[in-house]
Amino acid sequence: MTEMAPRPTLEAVAARAGVSRATVSRVVNGAQGVRESLAARVRQAVEELGYVPNQAARSLVTRRHDAVAVVIAEPETRVFADPFFALQLRGISKELTAHDCQLVLLLTEGQGDHARVARYLAGNHVDGALVFSLHLDDPLPGLIRNAGVPTVFGGRPGWGEGGEGALYVDSDNRGGARTAVEHLVSLGRRRIAHITGALDQTSAVDRLEGFKDVLPDTDPALIEPGDFTPAGGERAMRALLDRCPDLDAVFAANDLSASGALRVLRERGLRVPEDVAVAGFDDMLPVAEQTDPPLTTVRQDIEHMGLLMARLLLRRLDRNGPEPDTEDGAPRSIVTPTTLVRRASA
Amino acid sequence: MTEMAPRPTLEAVAARAGVSRATVSRVVNGAQGVRESLAARVRQAVEELGYVPNQAARSLVTRRHDAVAVVIAEPETRVFADPFFALQLRGISKELTAHDCQLVLLLTEGQGDHARVARYLAGNHVDGALVFSLHLDDPLPGLIRNAGVPTVFGGRPGWGEGGEGALYVDSDNRGGARTAVEHLVSLGRRRIAHITGALDQTSAVDRLEGFKDVLPDTDPALIEPGDFTPAGGERAMRALLDRCPDLDAVFAANDLSASGALRVLRERGLRVPEDVAVAGFDDMLPVAEQTDPPLTTVRQDIEHMGLLMARLLLRRLDRNGPEPDTEDGAPRSIVTPTTLVRRASA
Repeated sequence: MTEMAPRPTLEAVAARAGVSRATVSRVVNGAQGVRESLAARVRQAVEELGYVPNQAARSLVTRRHDAVAVVIAEPETRVFADPFFALQLRGISKELTAHDCQLVLLLTEGQGDHARVARYLAGNHVDGALVFSLHLDDPLPGLIRNAGVPTVFGGRPGWGEGGEGALYVDSDNRGGARTAVEHLVSLGRRRIAHITGALDQTSAVDRLEGFKDVLPDTDPALIEPGDFTPAGGERAMRALLDRCPDLDAVFAANDLSASGALRVLRERGLRVPEDVAVAGFDDMLPVAEQTDPPLTTVRQDIEHMGLLMARLLLRRLDRNGPEPDTEDGAPRSIVTPTTLVRRASA
Repeated sequence: MTEMAPRPTLEAVAARAGVSRATVSRVVNGAQGVRESLAARVRQAVEELGYVPNQAARSLVTRRHDAVAVVIAEPETRVFADPFFALQLRGISKELTAHDCQLVLLLTEGQGDHARVARYLAGNHVDGALVFSLHLDDPLPGLIRNAGVPTVFGGRPGWGEGGEGALYVDSDNRGGARTAVEHLVSLGRRRIAHITGALDQTSAVDRLEGFKDVLPDTDPALIEPGDFTPAGGERAMRALLDRCPDLDAVFAANDLSASGALRVLRERGLRVPEDVAVAGFDDMLPVAEQTDPPLTTVRQDIEHMGLLMARLLLRRLDRNGPEPDTEDGAPRSIVTPTTLVRRASA
């Protein structure tokens, strides 16, 4: 396509259909009040000519782009390596597509690119944004606030100022963690370790709090930071075993780090669950079912959370009409429940 | 963020820095001729206020968005399931980021959404587009042509009319396939089967042609359509073994389908390579190394092809200045070489 064919115009469509420009415009923009026989002629002419409506001009009228940006505050390598993001995107994609709204995924190499992402968000290219996997030191929330784009966050935002009014979808991380640790306690385990997630993310902080809710007087040596990755789980498990060889259970902050922990336990000749019981968080399939042994874990419905994020944003943008969530009719944040799924590891 | 803080204006930055609006505008838009001491004051004010330039207004001046769309003509589930796309995106992301250009990935649920993708491309949101994994019946190329967006394709486009001038990056699919099949012949194999890729894609057609180049008089029963997926490879291998139990080698159109074929061969009690030699295409890691046995395959550098696509588009957009690829200085399509990688399977 080094040579561009001239782009079919609204006028060409009007001439082909034998109607006025205004009629074509009304049909193309989905306005009411055009006779069906005329509308059908317009649609046929649009198809025959391969006419693409001028979205920029259309946006000036409707003030809409029918597009929503998704920003995952991780390098693109991580986005494609961690199935959590694919699941969340699946839910988002289904919901946006059901509303004929384009999913615009803004990928980056890291936080250094977030100012550029904010410029794109401020550039009148999308109606709103879905932002997830935020880290506490990330300038993105402030940049987004300045960009003035309606936003829904995945996971409770952790920044102080301005964060209170933010709309978000999160799961009950703290309650879910409590369930997992209470389960390990109910098995009679007394030296229960915790491999945390990335502690610059609220999900990891909340799961740690849930662990401490059940075991307020725990030995600090039994808590080791991880980063939600299998490699981080391996590192943390090695550190814990070196420091506390008598541990008899591990609650890992997600299934991927639990899978790393299981590998190290096997490597050290420890039996799961006989010597060490292991619980994860996510119920990410196929990960949780294919570990050896299959993983007892806290289930959150990641795909559904993606769908809820998209739905909340569309409601905020009033794409679904007024559907009161609350007494004053404004949409509000959603915290989804979690459940314990028992498999062989604990 | 149900309440928006007022967005800092250009005027506010000018007041803070003690300079004129015009000076702020010049610094923000990267124009020359502003004294460094003034520019530094402007940059400091921008930072202190969290000012985000109005990209829409800026685009009117520069006619640039500093953004490139990527369209993978597959459902988003497939995009996240096949590591080929993650690799190609990695190359694209690195190259675009090096030019401070935003990667805008447009995800869909399938071909039914391609008209919406074309509307977004036509909507003045990006400077150009990278499009890959096209299928022959896809209306996208025509829609993109009408949208008038400079485009580089990944893989030689297969449509006739208008396709001749298209810029693309492809690997030497036909030559690579020849190398693999010649290798199987050199091992003394005489009943060599081929599991094709999705035959509505030129890469699959070209690899089939390469197979036929070496074996022009092959038994048609030895050719079975696949679809580039592990499940498709399994189905095809079963059909081939049922029809031709005497086959002694298989060339699969990619590593994922070869991995499916290997599973079926093992299931049927056939030894690889003793009974059946197997070769793939891609050298996709870790797939090709982790099959049992590790896979002999045709290597193409997928990440580098992504990088070349981005580079070709940026050159087409004149982002790199005039850098003549050809005598007339115009950028031209690129076909990258392939090499055979020998492992245990053949």
